[in-house]
Amino acid sequence: MAGDGSDQRALQYEQTLMYGRYTQELGVYAKEEAARLRESGQRRSVSDRSRTLDLLEYDKGRCAKCRICTVRCQKFLISRVGEDWIFLILLGLLMALVSWVVDFCIAICLQAQKWMYGGLDSNVFLQYLAWVTYPVVLITFSAGFTQILAPQAVGSGIPEMKTILRGVVLKEYLTFKTFVAKVIGLTCALGSGMPLGKEGPFVHIASLCAALLSKFMSLFGGIYENESRNIEMLAAACAVGVGCCFAAPIGGVLFSIEVTSTFFAVRNYWRGFFAATFSAFIFRVLAVWNRDEETITALFKTRFRLDFPFDLQELPAFAVIGIASGFGGALFVYLNRLIVQFIRKQKAINRFLMKKRLLYPALVTLLVSTLTFPPGFGQFMAGKLTQKESLVTLLDNRTWAKQGIAEEFDYIGHSQAWKHPQVNVFVTLVLFIVMKFWMSALATTIPVPCGAFMPVFVIGAAFGRLVGESMAAWFPDGIHTDGTIYPIVPGGYAVVGAAALSGAVTHTVSTAVIVFELTGQISHILPVMIAVILANAVAQSLQPSLYDSIIRIKKLPYLPELGWGHHEKYNIRVEDIMVRDVRYITLNCCYRDLHNVLLTGHLKTLALVESAESMILLGSIERAQLQSLLSQQLGRPRRLEYIRERAVAEKKRLSVVSNPDSEDGSQRVSQEVRFQISTEESTFSPVRPVAQKPLKPALKRPSVVERPTEIPTSPQDNSGIALKNLFCASPDTEGLEDDGDVEDDMTIREIAEWEEMQLDEQVNFNNCKIDPAPFQLVERTSLHKTHTIFSLLGLDHAYVTSIGRLIGVVSLKELRKAIEGSVTVKGVKVRPPLASFRDSGTSSSENEATELHKLWDRHKSMSLPREHTPSESDEKSQ
Amino acid sequence: MAGDGSDQRALQYEQTLMYGRYTQELGVYAKEEAARLRESGQRRSVSDRSRTLDLLEYDKGRCAKCRICTVRCQKFLISRVGEDWIFLILLGLLMALVSWVVDFCIAICLQAQKWMYGGLDSNVFLQYLAWVTYPVVLITFSAGFTQILAPQAVGSGIPEMKTILRGVVLKEYLTFKTFVAKVIGLTCALGSGMPLGKEGPFVHIASLCAALLSKFMSLFGGIYENESRNIEMLAAACAVGVGCCFAAPIGGVLFSIEVTSTFFAVRNYWRGFFAATFSAFIFRVLAVWNRDEETITALFKTRFRLDFPFDLQELPAFAVIGIASGFGGALFVYLNRLIVQFIRKQKAINRFLMKKRLLYPALVTLLVSTLTFPPGFGQFMAGKLTQKESLVTLLDNRTWAKQGIAEEFDYIGHSQAWKHPQVNVFVTLVLFIVMKFWMSALATTIPVPCGAFMPVFVIGAAFGRLVGESMAAWFPDGIHTDGTIYPIVPGGYAVVGAAALSGAVTHTVSTAVIVFELTGQISHILPVMIAVILANAVAQSLQPSLYDSIIRIKKLPYLPELGWGHHEKYNIRVEDIMVRDVRYITLNCCYRDLHNVLLTGHLKTLALVESAESMILLGSIERAQLQSLLSQQLGRPRRLEYIRERAVAEKKRLSVVSNPDSEDGSQRVSQEVRFQISTEESTFSPVRPVAQKPLKPALKRPSVVERPTEIPTSPQDNSGIALKNLFCASPDTEGLEDDGDVEDDMTIREIAEWEEMQLDEQVNFNNCKIDPAPFQLVERTSLHKTHTIFSLLGLDHAYVTSIGRLIGVVSLKELRKAIEGSVTVKGVKVRPPLASFRDSGTSSSENEATELHKLWDRHKSMSLPREHTPSESDEKSQ
Repeated sequence: MAGDGSDQRALQYEQTLMYGRYTQELGVYAKEEAARLRESGQRRSVSDRSRTLDLLEYDKGRCAKCRICTVRCQKFLISRVGEDWIFLILLGLLMALVSWVVDFCIAICLQAQKWMYGGLDSNVFLQYLAWVTYPVVLITFSAGFTQILAPQAVGSGIPEMKTILRGVVLKEYLTFKTFVAKVIGLTCALGSGMPLGKEGPFVHIASLCAALLSKFMSLFGGIYENESRNIEMLAAACAVGVGCCFAAPIGGVLFSIEVTSTFFAVRNYWRGFFAATFSAFIFRVLAVWNRDEETITALFKTRFRLDFPFDLQELPAFAVIGIASGFGGALFVYLNRLIVQFIRKQKAINRFLMKKRLLYPALVTLLVSTLTFPPGFGQFMAGKLTQKESLVTLLDNRTWAKQGIAEEFDYIGHSQAWKHPQVNVFVTLVLFIVMKFWMSALATTIPVPCGAFMPVFVIGAAFGRLVGESMAAWFPDGIHTDGTIYPIVPGGYAVVGAAALSGAVTHTVSTAVIVFELTGQISHILPVMIAVILANAVAQSLQPSLYDSIIRIKKLPYLPELGWGHHEKYNIRVEDIMVRDVRYITLNCCYRDLHNVLLTGHLKTLALVESAESMILLGSIERAQLQSLLSQQLGRPRRLEYIRERAVAEKKRLSVVSNPDSEDGSQRVSQEVRFQISTEESTFSPVRPVAQKPLKPALKRPSVVERPTEIPTSPQDNSGIALKNLFCASPDTEGLEDDGDVEDDMTIREIAEWEEMQLDEQVNFNNCKIDPAPFQLVERTSLHKTHTIFSLLGLDHAYVTSIGRLIGVVSLKELRKAIEGSVTVKGVKVRPPLASFRDSGTSSSENEATELHKLWDRHKSMSLPREHTPSESDEKSQ
Repeated sequence: MAGDGSDQRALQYEQTLMYGRYTQELGVYAKEEAARLRESGQRRSVSDRSRTLDLLEYDKGRCAKCRICTVRCQKFLISRVGEDWIFLILLGLLMALVSWVVDFCIAICLQAQKWMYGGLDSNVFLQYLAWVTYPVVLITFSAGFTQILAPQAVGSGIPEMKTILRGVVLKEYLTFKTFVAKVIGLTCALGSGMPLGKEGPFVHIASLCAALLSKFMSLFGGIYENESRNIEMLAAACAVGVGCCFAAPIGGVLFSIEVTSTFFAVRNYWRGFFAATFSAFIFRVLAVWNRDEETITALFKTRFRLDFPFDLQELPAFAVIGIASGFGGALFVYLNRLIVQFIRKQKAINRFLMKKRLLYPALVTLLVSTLTFPPGFGQFMAGKLTQKESLVTLLDNRTWAKQGIAEEFDYIGHSQAWKHPQVNVFVTLVLFIVMKFWMSALATTIPVPCGAFMPVFVIGAAFGRLVGESMAAWFPDGIHTDGTIYPIVPGGYAVVGAAALSGAVTHTVSTAVIVFELTGQISHILPVMIAVILANAVAQSLQPSLYDSIIRIKKLPYLPELGWGHHEKYNIRVEDIMVRDVRYITLNCCYRDLHNVLLTGHLKTLALVESAESMILLGSIERAQLQSLLSQQLGRPRRLEYIRERAVAEKKRLSVVSNPDSEDGSQRVSQEVRFQISTEESTFSPVRPVAQKPLKPALKRPSVVERPTEIPTSPQDNSGIALKNLFCASPDTEGLEDDGDVEDDMTIREIAEWEEMQLDEQVNFNNCKIDPAPFQLVERTSLHKTHTIFSLLGLDHAYVTSIGRLIGVVSLKELRKAIEGSVTVKGVKVRPPLASFRDSGTSSSENEATELHKLWDRHKSMSLPREHTPSESDEKSQ
C-alpha cells in the first residue's frame, strides 16, 4: 500500500464518504484522474496495436493470423477481467487453495507432534518435553513472526472487518505483509494443537486476498479502484472466508452477514453465494483429488438415522442445552475480556510481559499443553485428541454410556480416548468441558492469528454430548411410547450443543446452518434452531458478542445494536439527545473566530452556517481543513511574504540587497531555539501534547489525515506563537524553498502583532474542502430511526436542523449513550431490563477506559502518526 | 381500518417518511397524541385500581387476596404484551394454525374430488363431468368470493409486500376483509387441484396477520402504533409466511429477505428466525398430534444414500440442469407476462371477459382439468396425481427407467402413475413438463389468491428427474470408476432441478435452503448451489423475476436492481442524470409565483430556496401543501371575509342590514351556474381532468392525500376562476358555515380582480408543512451510490446541492431511466450486455403502458379516489 501518496490519500478520503460528499479539490482530482485513465487507456490500446504490428513483422512468414488471433483473445480476456464474476472466481479459487494448503500444513504439524510423542514412549519425561516444547516453539514463532512482520495480523480479524465494512478505513489491515503474517502465523498457531480456530482469521485472510487481488486486477482496468465496489467485494470475501474454511457456503454467507454487517444489501447476496460456493467446491475437490475422500461430502459427516431423528419429548432437553449454552456463551465472552483486562491492569505483570513480548504466549502454551499431556491430566480429558478428532468423536452416533449398540464405525480408535478405565465417561466429558472452556478463553488472548469459533464449537459439542449421554442413560430404550424402540442419539445432542454454544458466543443464528453443512445432515433442524435461538436470547441479554467485546477492548469505533425489543427506543427523539451547543463558523467570519472555535470545540467537523443570525446550514468543514486554513494564514510562508513585501518597500528607500543563499537549516534552528525560550508561559500545553498522543496507531480515518501534521512533541509553546505552532503544523516545504531570499528577522513581539493583524482578516473559504450536504435530521426523528440512518450510512455525526436552521448536532457518542441507557426521557428510563447485570460485567473496563476514550473522542480529528507502534491494544486481541 | 380519520391520516403521513421529516402540524399532533396516551394510561391505571377496589368490596368475605393477585398478574401480562417476542410467538402460532387448517381443508377437497372420480368409474363421461365440474366450481367460487369481498387478495401478494416494505403504503392490502378473502379464496383455489401454489399468498396472509395482530395488540399498549416497528414486524411476517408454508424456517427467512427487501437490517434477522422457527415447529407438531407423522421430520422427506451422494463427474449434468432451468425460468416469467398482456390487449376478449368476471377463471380451469383428465390425455402426464403426490414421487430415490433396484418404498402406488403401459417414462416426463409449464403460467393469471412457487418447483423436479433418468439410462452402473458401483440417484437430480427452476423464476438463491429443509437432506448441497447460481445467472440476465414482472404489470412504484456486475454504474454521476431545471419557490415569493410554479411543474414536492439569487435550499414543500395555501388565499372564505369587511365599511355609510339567514344552497347553485357559463374559454382543461383520473386506485401515498380534494370532474373552467377551481378544491365547510352572514355578490370581473390582488400578496408559510431536511446529493455522487441511498431510504426524489445551493433534482424516474440504460455518458453506453434481448421481451408492454405511466408519474401527487374500482390491473395478477 506504499507508492503514489497523493492519489491514495484522495482515494482514502473518498472511502470514508458514504453518501457522496463533494469537495472541490476532490472534484478536480477526479477529473484529472478520469483524464489520466482515458489517456492511459488510449496509450495502452496504441501500445497494443504497435505490439500487434511488431508481431506481424516478426513472424511474417509464420502463422501471423494465428498470432493476431491470440493477441485479440488476450485483449478480450483482459477486457473481461473487469467483470465481477471473474474476480469472484479468482477469489474463491485462491482462498480454496490457501485454505487447503493451510489445512494440509496444520495436519502435518499435528502429525509430527504425534509422531514425536509416540516415538518417545520409553521415557515419560522426554515424552512430556516433546509434547510441551513443540507447541511452545510453534506458538512463540507465530507470535514473534506476526509481531515483527505485521502486528495487525494478530487475533481473529472479524472485529476489524466489521469496522472496515462500517466505513472506517483501517488501512494497515489490508496489506500484503499482513496477509503473509496471518497465513504463516495461523498455520503455526493451529499446528501447535492449542484450542484455537481458523474461521475468524480466514475471514480476514479472504478480505486481504480480495483487497490484494483487487489491487492486482486494477492493473487491467479502472473499476477496481472504486470504493463502493471494494466494500461490496470485501463483504463477499468475508463470506468466502467462512465458506472455504468449513466448506459451508450458505452458512458462510449468513454468518459473515450476521457478524460483519448491520445493514445488508440484498444485491450483494449473490456475490457471496457465488464466491463461497465456488470456494467450498474447490476446497472439497482438492480433498477428492488428494484421495482423502471418495467424493464431495461434508467435513464432519454424521450418520444419524433419517426416519426418526428425535422424539418430540426430547425437545425440553434440547431447550435446556440452548439456555445453558446461552449462559455459557456469555460467560466465555466475559472470561475472555476479564483475562485481557487483568493482564492489562496488572502493571507489574504487564510491564514484564510487554518487555518480553513472547513470554506471555509461551507461558500460556506451556500451561495448556502441560495440562493436556496425555499420560498426565490429559488422560481424564481426552487430551491426546486434536480438535478435529474430538469433534469427529463427539458427533459419533453411538452411545458411549451404555455400550449396547455397536455399529460399523471406524472411529473406535479415537473414541477410546474418552473412555478411561477408572473414570466414568461423564467425568471425562465434564472435565473436558471445564478445562477446555477456560483454556480456550485464555488461548484466544495470545497475540497470534487465531479465532475462537472452532474451540467454542467443540466445547458446545462436548456439552451436547454430555446431555445426550445423560438422556441415553436415563432412557435406555428411548422416550417414544408407541411400540417401536428408538434409542436416543447422543450425537444429535452434540450437534445441537455445538450450534447453540457457538451461536451464543458470536450472537448469530447462522451457526445452525453451518452445523448442517458441516455434518451433512439437516434432520435435527428444529432442535438446533430452537436451541440456537434460546442461546442467543440468553447470551444477548447478558453480554455483547465476542466480536463486539473485542471491538470495545480495542476501542474501535462502533455503534451498539438496538437490543431485543426495547421499545422505549421508539419514544426517544433526537431533540432529547442532541447537543444544542453546536460549534459553527459563519461564512463571513474572520480568522480569529476560526481560531477560537478550534480552541474551544472538539468535534471532528464544524458546521458552516450563513450567518449567526440566520443559522442556515450551508455545509460542514473538517477540522483539519480549518487548521490548514489558519496555518496558511499564520504560516511562515505568508510571514516571509509579508517580510519580503516589507523589505521591498524598505529596499526602495535603502536598497539593501538580501543574501540570495537560503539559510533554511540555521533558520529552523533559530526558530526552535526561540520556541524553547518562550516555553515558560505555555498556556496551551494541556491541549496540544494530548492531541498528538499516538492513541490509536492502527486506526486511520484518512479523511482526516489529509496531510500528516507532524508537530514536534516536546512542549514548546508561547501564548502567541502557540497558535502558530498548533496550526502551522506542517511547515510548507515548497514555501520554505522559494522564500529563501528573505530572512525571518521578526521579533516575537513583531510576530505576535503580525499574527493579531492576520487574525482579523476575513476567512477565504475558496481553497477549502466543504462538504455541502452533511446529513441532517430533525428534532422529532426517533432514536430508532437515527440509529438506522447512522448504521446504514456509516455516519459519525449528523446535524439537526429546523427549516434550514442549525439547532443541534448528534454524534455517535450521544447515540451510543442514549442506546446504552444513560438518557432518561419523559419518565421512561431507557434501560434494557437485563442491562444492570450486563453493566456490572463491563463497568470495570468502561471506567478504566473512560479517560482515554474521552481524549480519543476529542482528538481523533488530529493527525495520527504513520508508523504503527505496537500498543497494548493489539496483543490482547482474539 | 376505518375509524378516526384524522389520526390515521397523520400516521399514514408519518409512514411514508423514511428519515424523519418534520412538519409543524405533525409535531403538534405528536405532542397531543403523547399527551393523550399518557392521560389514557393514567386513566387506565386509575380504572384498574378502581376495579381492584370494586372486586375487594364485592368478594370481601371470599379469597380477596387471590383476586388481587389475579388482577396483578393480568396487569403484568398486559404490560409484557408489549414485548416483541410475545408478538412473534402469537404470530407464529396463528400462522401455523392457519397453515395447518388450510392444508387440512385442501386435503379434504382433493380427497373429495378423488372420491367422486373414483366412485363414478362405471361411466367415463360422468367421471369426466365430475373431474371437470369440481375444480371449475371451486375456482369460480374462489374468484367470485375474492372479487366481491376484497379484490386485493388476488394473486400472490409478494409484489405488494415488496412495495409495502419499500415504504409505500398500499393500505387496502392489509385489512381483515382481505385476510378472510385470501384464506378462503386460497383454500378453494388449491382445493381444486389446479397447478397453483400456496407460498406467495402465505407471505401475504402472514403480513395480514401481523398487521391485524398489531392492531389488536395496540389495544394494550402504545408501541404497536409505531411505524418503524410495523415495518420490522411485516418483514418478520414474510419470513413466517414462507416458514410455516414449507416448514422451512431458515429458507423462509432467506427467501423472504431476497424477495421483499433491497436492504436488510441484520437486527431484524432474529425476529424472522424466531417467528419462523416457532411457526414451523407448531405446524409440524400439529401433524404429529394429528397422527399423520410419528415425529417432526421434513415435509417431503427423501432417503438418498449418505455415504456417496453423487460423483464428481456428475457435476456437468447438474450444471446443465442449472443453465436449462435458467432459460426455463426466464421463459416462464415471459410466458406469464405475455398471457396477461394478450388478454389485456385483445379489446374484444377483454370486454367480454370483464363483463363476465368469472368466465375467464372457469374457462381456464375447464381447459386445464380437461387436459389432465386421467383416462384422457392425463394418462400420459400423470394427470391423476395431485401436486404433492407428484413431488413425492419425483423425489423418490429409485430409478424408474431401469427397474433394477427395488427398495422398501411405499409410494409404489403413486409411482405407477408415471409408467404408462405403451409409453416410455421419458415421454411421460417430457409431456408432464411441457404441459404443466404452460398450464402453470396460465393458471397463475387467474384472479384468485395463488402463488407460482410450488407449480414451478414441481416442474423443476420433473425436469431434474428427466435428466437424472437419462443419466441413469446412460450410465447403468454409475460413473464412479474405482471398484465400488454407485448407481446414479435420479431423485437427487430432481432435488437439484426443483431448486434451480424455482430459483430462476423468483431470482433467489435461498430456494437451495428451502429444498434442503423440504427434503430433510443436505447431501446434495454443492450440486444444488451450483445449479441455483447458474440458473440465477442466466435468468437474471434475460428477464426480471416473476415478482418484479408483476410489479411492472401492476405498475407499482419500483426501482430496478443494479444487475450482475454492470460496472459502468460506477462511472455515471448524478450530474449526468439530474434534472437541472428545478421548480422552486423562494421564501419571499408571492402567491402568483406559487400559482405559476404549480401550473408549470409536475413534481410531487417543490424545493424551497432562500432567494432566486442565493438558491440556498431551505427545505421542500409538498405540492398539496402549496395548493392548500393557494386555496386558502383565493378561497371562498377569504373572499367572503373580504366581502364582509367591505360590507362593514359600506355599512358604516349606508347601514344596510344583511340577511342573517345563510343561503348556502342557492349560493352554490349560482356559483356552479356561473362556472358553466364560462366553460367556453377553458384553457386549462387538458391539465385538470387528467390529474383527476382514477389512475391507480389501490395505490395510496397518504402523504399526498392529506385532504381529498374532490374537484368536480366535469370541465367547467374559466381562465380566471380556473385558478380557484384548481386550488380551492375542497370548499372549507367550516368557513362556509360561519361566513353565512354575508352574501357572495361579487361578479366574475370583481372576483378576477380580487384574485389578481390576492395573488400579489407575499406568501405566508407559517401554516405550511415544510420538510426541513430533504435528501441532498452532490453532483459527483455515483449512480451506484444514488441507487443505494434511494433504496435504503425509500426516497422518491433527492435534491442535488453544491454548498447549500440547489442545482438539480433526481427522482426515481431519472434513476430508473439511467439504470435501465437510456443514458449515455462519457462515451459509455450504459446498457447491460444482454439487455437488448430483455428489452425485446418487455418493450411491447412498456410501449403500451408508456402513455398511462407518464401521466401517472406526472400526476400521482394529485388526489386519488378512496373507493377501489376494480381496474384491469388486478385480475391479471398472479
